[in-house]
Amino acid sequence: MIIVMKKGAGKEALAEVKKRIRELGYKAHVIHGESRDVIGAIGDERGKAILQSLESMPHVEAVVPILRPYKLASREIKPEPSVFELAPGVSIGGKELLVMAGPCSVEGESQLLETARAVKAAGAKILRGGAFKPRTSPYAFQGLEEEGLKLLAAAREVTGLPIVTEVVNPRDVDLVARYADVLQVGARNVQNFPLLRLLGQQNKPVLLKRGMSTTIQEFLMSAEYILSEGNQRVVLCERGIRTFETATRNTLDLSAVPVLKEQTHLPVVIDPSHSTGHASLVPAMCYAAVAAGCDGLLVEVHNDPETASCDGPQSLTPEDFSAVMEKLRRFAAAADRSL
Amino acid sequence: MIIVMKKGAGKEALAEVKKRIRELGYKAHVIHGESRDVIGAIGDERGKAILQSLESMPHVEAVVPILRPYKLASREIKPEPSVFELAPGVSIGGKELLVMAGPCSVEGESQLLETARAVKAAGAKILRGGAFKPRTSPYAFQGLEEEGLKLLAAAREVTGLPIVTEVVNPRDVDLVARYADVLQVGARNVQNFPLLRLLGQQNKPVLLKRGMSTTIQEFLMSAEYILSEGNQRVVLCERGIRTFETATRNTLDLSAVPVLKEQTHLPVVIDPSHSTGHASLVPAMCYAAVAAGCDGLLVEVHNDPETASCDGPQSLTPEDFSAVMEKLRRFAAAADRSL
Amino acid sequence: MIIVMKKGAGKEALAEVKKRIRELGYKAHVIHGESRDVIGAIGDERGKAILQSLESMPHVEAVVPILRPYKLASREIKPEPSVFELAPGVSIGGKELLVMAGPCSVEGESQLLETARAVKAAGAKILRGGAFKPRTSPYAFQGLEEEGLKLLAAAREVTGLPIVTEVVNPRDVDLVARYADVLQVGARNVQNFPLLRLLGQQNKPVLLKRGMSTTIQEFLMSAEYILSEGNQRVVLCERGIRTFETATRNTLDLSAVPVLKEQTHLPVVIDPSHSTGHASLVPAMCYAAVAAGCDGLLVEVHNDPETASCDGPQSLTPEDFSAVMEKLRRFAAAADRSL
Amino acid sequence: MIIVMKKGAGKEALAEVKKRIRELGYKAHVIHGESRDVIGAIGDERGKAILQSLESMPHVEAVVPILRPYKLASREIKPEPSVFELAPGVSIGGKELLVMAGPCSVEGESQLLETARAVKAAGAKILRGGAFKPRTSPYAFQGLEEEGLKLLAAAREVTGLPIVTEVVNPRDVDLVARYADVLQVGARNVQNFPLLRLLGQQNKPVLLKRGMSTTIQEFLMSAEYILSEGNQRVVLCERGIRTFETATRNTLDLSAVPVLKEQTHLPVVIDPSHSTGHASLVPAMCYAAVAAGCDGLLVEVHNDPETASCDGPQSLTPEDFSAVMEKLRRFAAAADRSL
Repeated sequence: MIIVMKKGAGKEALAEVKKRIRELGYKAHVIHGESRDVIGAIGDERGKAILQSLESMPHVEAVVPILRPYKLASREIKPEPSVFELAPGVSIGGKELLVMAGPCSVEGESQLLETARAVKAAGAKILRGGAFKPRTSPYAFQGLEEEGLKLLAAAREVTGLPIVTEVVNPRDVDLVARYADVLQVGARNVQNFPLLRLLGQQNKPVLLKRGMSTTIQEFLMSAEYILSEGNQRVVLCERGIRTFETATRNTLDLSAVPVLKEQTHLPVVIDPSHSTGHASLVPAMCYAAVAAGCDGLLVEVHNDPETASCDGPQSLTPEDFSAVMEKLRRFAAAADRSL
Repeated sequence: MIIVMKKGAGKEALAEVKKRIRELGYKAHVIHGESRDVIGAIGDERGKAILQSLESMPHVEAVVPILRPYKLASREIKPEPSVFELAPGVSIGGKELLVMAGPCSVEGESQLLETARAVKAAGAKILRGGAFKPRTSPYAFQGLEEEGLKLLAAAREVTGLPIVTEVVNPRDVDLVARYADVLQVGARNVQNFPLLRLLGQQNKPVLLKRGMSTTIQEFLMSAEYILSEGNQRVVLCERGIRTFETATRNTLDLSAVPVLKEQTHLPVVIDPSHSTGHASLVPAMCYAAVAAGCDGLLVEVHNDPETASCDGPQSLTPEDFSAVMEKLRRFAAAADRSL
Repeated sequence: MIIVMKKGAGKEALAEVKKRIRELGYKAHVIHGESRDVIGAIGDERGKAILQSLESMPHVEAVVPILRPYKLASREIKPEPSVFELAPGVSIGGKELLVMAGPCSVEGESQLLETARAVKAAGAKILRGGAFKPRTSPYAFQGLEEEGLKLLAAAREVTGLPIVTEVVNPRDVDLVARYADVLQVGARNVQNFPLLRLLGQQNKPVLLKRGMSTTIQEFLMSAEYILSEGNQRVVLCERGIRTFETATRNTLDLSAVPVLKEQTHLPVVIDPSHSTGHASLVPAMCYAAVAAGCDGLLVEVHNDPETASCDGPQSLTPEDFSAVMEKLRRFAAAADRSL
Repeated sequence: MIIVMKKGAGKEALAEVKKRIRELGYKAHVIHGESRDVIGAIGDERGKAILQSLESMPHVEAVVPILRPYKLASREIKPEPSVFELAPGVSIGGKELLVMAGPCSVEGESQLLETARAVKAAGAKILRGGAFKPRTSPYAFQGLEEEGLKLLAAAREVTGLPIVTEVVNPRDVDLVARYADVLQVGARNVQNFPLLRLLGQQNKPVLLKRGMSTTIQEFLMSAEYILSEGNQRVVLCERGIRTFETATRNTLDLSAVPVLKEQTHLPVVIDPSHSTGHASLVPAMCYAAVAAGCDGLLVEVHNDPETASCDGPQSLTPEDFSAVMEKLRRFAAAADRSL
């Protein structure tokens, strides 16, 4: 932390701030500048948030953090990328790209099975599908809940595809974990800390979606909640952020891929469906995501988008998905990845 | 819903879309335009989200909603403003403005009591204080939990001030409801739908904070979750939205006050502390909020901001708060409100 | 500037950075931290942007500015607020609030005169009206240009109201200055630096609008362009910033008022019309702006909004404006201002 | 345009609105809905902005545009992509990707020549470099102006590379056009309409950068200004938009590539340098941009980024640029493009 004094703050004011810094357990190091003094507070970074309260002192202009507050998620702690299994034989973070695909929500047996078979045939390695659906409107379809989980398990039985599905309520973590291979945290729950803590105590990998107005630093702090409880298998998923632009549902922040790759060892996947909101934009963003260096994709595919009870406009048909996967192999190769 | 056809879409395409609209339970009414056709879908508004899937049809350009999807929160259902008690003798939504004040988090007995007495003396009618604290970092102070609730109850005992405190986990709703008079939903949980549903089943009023990237329409849909479960006592709280501006912690969206007043009958309060993030900006925003027509304020006050374990820089001292209340009476009078 | 070294950067790397800092004319002061070193660069703040290039050095993690880069606009240079005349007898920045009102664009003689008389009767002190209109679409009405300026001058003749009008093209500065009392820079031109420089050489006050995505710091840097050319009469106008919210045309950033009041001595006015985009929201934002501490308002009034060639939906009728002014006096009094 | 009536608006109100619509030259077509009526206004789309004023009518709830207001830039007018020359032998919009590279600003002869030779050797086809620099601060380096243009022309002489450089002031259009092959409009001038109009009258291609808070629709309207004056050679450049995220200088909106490709026939290039602000992020975004389907890149390269007078941190070294170009060929091939 750098504490910036106000212009004209005298010696006494400086002494008082230094005293407070020491009381909070840090060393104070003053730089006398031309127009004002600044103080560096030296000590363990993780607790430094407490220094922010110094801004209430009358002669303090600002308290400026200079380091990142996460630790376990950081490349500084673990320089090499994390590679781990999401299910037996299905890894993420290594040379092979991982594509997860399936419908936004589980609507019924034939819908799910038909879609699951199609995405498997096209090369997807994990089946996605929502059983608990957080919807903006209380009047919209809310998911089949446990019935949906059973259908997902049945589809896994038939196709062999491991399943990833969202958990919304801390109460349901055990229930969902009984069925799912990978537990998904949706964008709206990226700062649902009780949920994150519980998932940190699970023995299942977690797919953590970035919130629509979460900074990359906050996103990594949310991952840190899970990691700090002991669960080291966290996959980060960028799914678009909220901006002023309305041509897309959200604005896919693809630069987040190289930023995250610099800052964290955790694998990064991209959701081109929720971010763009339009099926016609999904293929380009799949290719771009792989070129940007992501470790995998999470793509919405529906056997009949026109009748989908949720997010039809952004779902690929099985045919489109198959064509995307075909072309994606070329970009994967260009990126020295396999698919 | 207005379904916009692509330019050059022929008769057959139009017929197909009309057929789908009818299958979904709506009437289709075509307007033949100069460069393309549009179709109005007529029927119950609340289920119309399902029509969005028509965008997947090949000749459909866009599906444009023209009405607001909430109902119980709407002025159209209940034209006069809602006025209700938050605790015996403490109402909101009427002529009298309601000020809630207190520390960001409950830190200990003397801190809370001292602050509570001060805010009461200055004219606050409800004591605020966090026992469960959702913090961005897992390493930051997370609140005293039930111990904090007990301290709040003790402060109520001493001062007579009803208390508002946040509930973060659906699991804790009953626990918090045993102590609190008003249950607060924080900005991060504005779309925590299981939590909202549970609060809709409580017999306690709810203070619902807008999320930092929640549109006003989404905010009202979140209120609708609570209302639709039966709990009609929802207070809306604007607390700043996330924008590119960094001079303030968030950007206080004060225009939301007249917008909400037009669209909903629910009372609206403003949190000038979290929105600005700096104590020096809080007084001006208190006055502006009352002038804009809000029904109350939620203000952070700490007996010693320099030692606060959370959000010190945005907390007023008791002296400052008292001065703000004094001046606020003049703005309340100008707005034909009492305080 | 604070230069943050990467973790593990050795002595040599540090020495190299220190050498570069000295070469650029600054003194280097090192703080050895627990996990990394930081260097304070000491010297004249205004040229420090050049230090940003140090981020290209291999062992530098980040370069963090800690001071504000503007000078003439700063309270540190001139602690007391600037009060100056916009026209003979019409001051801004003092105890008396200044209301500027009139149509978005000058459309014709009777429209302008009728509106001018009405706003004068209601208490406005300056007439606003656009002759050069920057419009998003090349097919929209672009203003009457010099003909519009002549109509404005004629309206001044009749009513005695000084006029403020926008200049869009550096080429037109002299032309507009021949007619106008106050030269307005629109939001789209807040970083049109050649225009700002020319206006800095004029002997007429400038009303500078914040851009829709201009930070407060950038806004003050734009003012600095004008000030540094010699023209000290700059009025800052907040008119809404672009955010994700669509219920209003822009999001009025009223917290900018106390922020600007802390940072600069220049007067601050609010445009409640462009920011909200809806006439029904304008009155509440007028009252709030005055309560927040602004020095004046810029309000769109049109004698017949339903036929306005531009921005009708956000224009007040003369009757509504008159009612707003009436009520505004009460808020002005509460804020210890006159109107 | 769709005019939405308020709930409960009676027959008379409807008749009045229909009358106004007809007076403005449009046909009115009413749809009687369950809870309210809506009116479609039928007629020429380009002038429809005028209908927005109907929102001022007492029984009108909202006026909703359903079509895009640009025409010449639209795929509906010209379905096939535009391919044109930027200089003799250097085309854009076809199968071959175009890379423009060079320093942010022209600083001197050796800097420019050394960089120009390097980017040419690596495969760039156009040299970029700023002679007129719009800088946020009046105290920052503002460019060498005409001297810079001469150095650019000299570099073209030596290397054979055509040059693209920014024009900031309408006054300088002729001057810059005498030296440059392609005239660049910077992000801050995307809505500098007098400048756009003048460029529309030039016989040189224009590289139009998106503003940092310009929607895609507004961006195309700015292109329309140039096109409607007769100049059909407009290249669109996405360079990052302003969001809440601070890890990157701006947020590169790569989804804009497929969106623009659907909506317009104009070529689209990406600037990965200004958007990310960090050289280490540039390579990934170059690859992603090509995978997303762009027609070219605009990349900052500096022979010695550590000493750059502007934007050093985001500039690639010649060695890095050469490596990027090498790898880029593989992504170009995957995208069926040549480089």
